[in-house]
Amino acid sequence: MNELAIWTYDWVPQGPRGFVRDLRLRWACEEAGLAYSVRTVAFDGRETNHLERQPFGQVPYLSDGELEMFESAAGLLHLARKSEKLMPRDKIGEAETVQWIIAALNSIEMITVPWWFLEMSGAKDNGLTAFMKGRLAQLERVLNEREWLSADRFTAADLLMADVLRLPKVRAYGDRPATEAFVTRVTDRPAFKKALADQLAHFAAADASRSAAR
Amino acid sequence: MNELAIWTYDWVPQGPRGFVRDLRLRWACEEAGLAYSVRTVAFDGRETNHLERQPFGQVPYLSDGELEMFESAAGLLHLARKSEKLMPRDKIGEAETVQWIIAALNSIEMITVPWWFLEMSGAKDNGLTAFMKGRLAQLERVLNEREWLSADRFTAADLLMADVLRLPKVRAYGDRPATEAFVTRVTDRPAFKKALADQLAHFAAADASRSAAR
Repeated sequence: MNELAIWTYDWVPQGPRGFVRDLRLRWACEEAGLAYSVRTVAFDGRETNHLERQPFGQVPYLSDGELEMFESAAGLLHLARKSEKLMPRDKIGEAETVQWIIAALNSIEMITVPWWFLEMSGAKDNGLTAFMKGRLAQLERVLNEREWLSADRFTAADLLMADVLRLPKVRAYGDRPATEAFVTRVTDRPAFKKALADQLAHFAAADASRSAAR
Repeated sequence: MNELAIWTYDWVPQGPRGFVRDLRLRWACEEAGLAYSVRTVAFDGRETNHLERQPFGQVPYLSDGELEMFESAAGLLHLARKSEKLMPRDKIGEAETVQWIIAALNSIEMITVPWWFLEMSGAKDNGLTAFMKGRLAQLERVLNEREWLSADRFTAADLLMADVLRLPKVRAYGDRPATEAFVTRVTDRPAFKKALADQLAHFAAADASRSAAR
């Protein structure tokens, strides 16, 4: 029995496939060589069926023996502490990795996801565009100067930042060659490809049982 | 000499005073009883004058001896590892605290700050309102059931969540009595009051030298 389990929905529509955030945890486990199982909670009724474990009705959450935690980035930090492949063990390398994990969440995704949400809602005037443009330009400057965000090598910070940046509408926004090269470099990793294929297969398999049940 | 230093601007206009995020780190140090100094970077020219240390041109950043890190929540996690007053040392208490720190950033602030930004921009139709309303309702349900977010006692997660929620337009949004009681309870702490007073005094003192220099 694996102690480490990644919880995701039993099924999702086509749209979010490949982007459900259990992918971040699958990917991290694949990078680190950590054994894990994938367990499910029902997509139908998600607004209320697992609030005890995820108060916003979302996935993923991670369980590790008696530990359980929601928020993909909290799970990522937990996995990063289990494996040096995800985060260096020296204090400076660790601090750099944590700061860039937080930057991916709070300096980039805090703008890209609401921007994406407004775009998907068909907003005629997306008031966040200029804000996002500035931030992405600042990140482009950083990525023009280095291959990896922290510690001069791949870490969980690159994983998370690339996952934030690969959202199609965000990735297509503007001409940012260093950022595009970064996203390509990070998502070319075998661990990402395995995690992505596994997530797609998981939801595809659910299509069959879902239609059989109807 | 204190090793721990919180870096902020030398001056800011009235508007953001009391909300510049160095307050999060001041507050955490006050809670933990950690000695620290406050150091400054020029507000004028902030877009480019400290990009080597903060690639988005913002404050705060935290230095601790040879360590240096930007992103207030990364600094908060660093301080939380230095003091049990901010985060329990047992694995479950730590995991809960980290998950709620990330939730404050990525489930709440990821919507409240862009929503606030659009409100401040005078958006006629703030497309994020319904999204934010749902999230704040989910958080209200949580705060209706417990006094503290994690570990049955005050932690750095409460500090961060309360700081996110006390943004005036967000705090005033809707009728959420448990959330209001939570924000009041957390910001009634002497460490918050000290940190707030110190930040206000820091910027007020700068008014004098700024006008003298002109």
